Amino acid sequence: MKRPAARPTGSGGPLGIICGGGDFPVQVAEAAQAAGRDVLLIGLQGSADPGIEAFPHVWAHVGEVGKVFKALGEAGAQDLILVGSVRRPAAKDVKLDWVGMKSVASLGRLLSGGDDQVLAGLITFLEEHGYLVLGIPDVAPDLLVRPGPLGRSKPDKAALSDVAVARKVLEVLGPFDVGQAAVVADGRVLAVEAAEGTDSMLRRVAKLRAQKRLRGEGGCLVKMAKSGQDLRVDLPAIGPKTVEGAVEAKLSGIAVEAGRAIATDTAALVKTADKAGLYIYGFGSGGGVP
Amino acid sequence: MKRPAARPTGSGGPLGIICGGGDFPVQVAEAAQAAGRDVLLIGLQGSADPGIEAFPHVWAHVGEVGKVFKALGEAGAQDLILVGSVRRPAAKDVKLDWVGMKSVASLGRLLSGGDDQVLAGLITFLEEHGYLVLGIPDVAPDLLVRPGPLGRSKPDKAALSDVAVARKVLEVLGPFDVGQAAVVADGRVLAVEAAEGTDSMLRRVAKLRAQKRLRGEGGCLVKMAKSGQDLRVDLPAIGPKTVEGAVEAKLSGIAVEAGRAIATDTAALVKTADKAGLYIYGFGSGGGVP
Repeated sequence: MKRPAARPTGSGGPLGIICGGGDFPVQVAEAAQAAGRDVLLIGLQGSADPGIEAFPHVWAHVGEVGKVFKALGEAGAQDLILVGSVRRPAAKDVKLDWVGMKSVASLGRLLSGGDDQVLAGLITFLEEHGYLVLGIPDVAPDLLVRPGPLGRSKPDKAALSDVAVARKVLEVLGPFDVGQAAVVADGRVLAVEAAEGTDSMLRRVAKLRAQKRLRGEGGCLVKMAKSGQDLRVDLPAIGPKTVEGAVEAKLSGIAVEAGRAIATDTAALVKTADKAGLYIYGFGSGGGVP
Repeated sequence: MKRPAARPTGSGGPLGIICGGGDFPVQVAEAAQAAGRDVLLIGLQGSADPGIEAFPHVWAHVGEVGKVFKALGEAGAQDLILVGSVRRPAAKDVKLDWVGMKSVASLGRLLSGGDDQVLAGLITFLEEHGYLVLGIPDVAPDLLVRPGPLGRSKPDKAALSDVAVARKVLEVLGPFDVGQAAVVADGRVLAVEAAEGTDSMLRRVAKLRAQKRLRGEGGCLVKMAKSGQDLRVDLPAIGPKTVEGAVEAKLSGIAVEAGRAIATDTAALVKTADKAGLYIYGFGSGGGVP
């Protein structure tokens, strides 16, 4: 699932945005429009936010492949991007049209295996049908976290040492399609994310601290793309809710890989972090930032 | 923290058992008595179970080092074993006597760092005072899980493949003093244990399944000693409660490393597992068992 070394960054023409949950699809649509592209938002029934209706859009059930392809054709969109969270669809949110029926074997295969495999399979499916699938770095690079501190607070030496431990943990877990996040305080690994998601992991740390079951204070949340991960899918993301979770867990800050993680709703995120004295930090990425 | 290659297995004389929580200290005391040793149980205030009073015993607060050394001397106990869970002590459970005061710097150092370091430091402290610290393999080898299935159910090929994935995850995490357990189903890592403990991790998987947030069924819990772990401390343990947690999480079974994990209350554990159709399996250990 490595991304090809040299890949076209798209036609620059109309962009189809396949929208899962959250308000991130809307932010991507705004960024693409600001860069001068027309957009068509495809809202996945049961996942996407009604906010997408502020843009040219169609709604589609999972499985309405023909409807989606037709709408993209009418908009002249050859480039696609997949954005937002998608839960395993409920039966009522699945509906197979004629093209969906013909593709049911390929689509069925997508529903086994880990998240990485599902999304990789979906990209292959779309590319086999002639679309070019782009990533946030291609379409909305301003949404990527930049190197260094994002708000007023900065990680001190002890914090950077915790960040380094968490990065190592996530690096060794890379091959396993496990979660992309860990919490470390005073060199000790307090939590590793797997299927539960980052918010749930932070609630767990908050609870352990409330029960006084943890030694030490502070600590960091680190989120990282898996090694070899296709940056067109499932980039690690932080937003205001992540910061609230980190505050509840009494952490000192959050660190993500610069250029390989998304900050959603940056203004609100930084405001919340600054108010609580948390650092938000982009590490690595070659810019002289450790 | 590697255990010396050749280590004496003790005097065979009276054994001091430093007792944390749970009923495992009592089981170790029974096993030692059955092997013909006198025992003295040291109950840690705030942790140990009143059940230890069925044996020769003293109660001590954390920090009452002089009192413990005196009791061990009177019993003629030169060999020690540390058994049972110890939570971070509450202020009311700490009391420094004269020897404790003199040792406060060494003891203070123990309270930073991960569990491994705390226990390694405690063993060093006891050995510097002339005691020999033994492990379950020395004192009560019958409490170790043997190779192969423990009850009626056996892991099938798919289950063994999940066990292999979980083992690999725990192996790469070995150097980090993280938890010793992971849950894998259909090749996917559902949960990794860190500071929350195994029971809490199993409740998390049960909840994710109840919310239908996980694909796939069954799966295994694997618990493993960390690579290089001193087998005198904190051996992975399973008991009836672990099996109940696995049933709630709808797992197919539990696998541990034969000879390097403890089964507490084996009869009840096997009964619960057999009733639910779960396998309990000892892997590795060179006996031809994969």
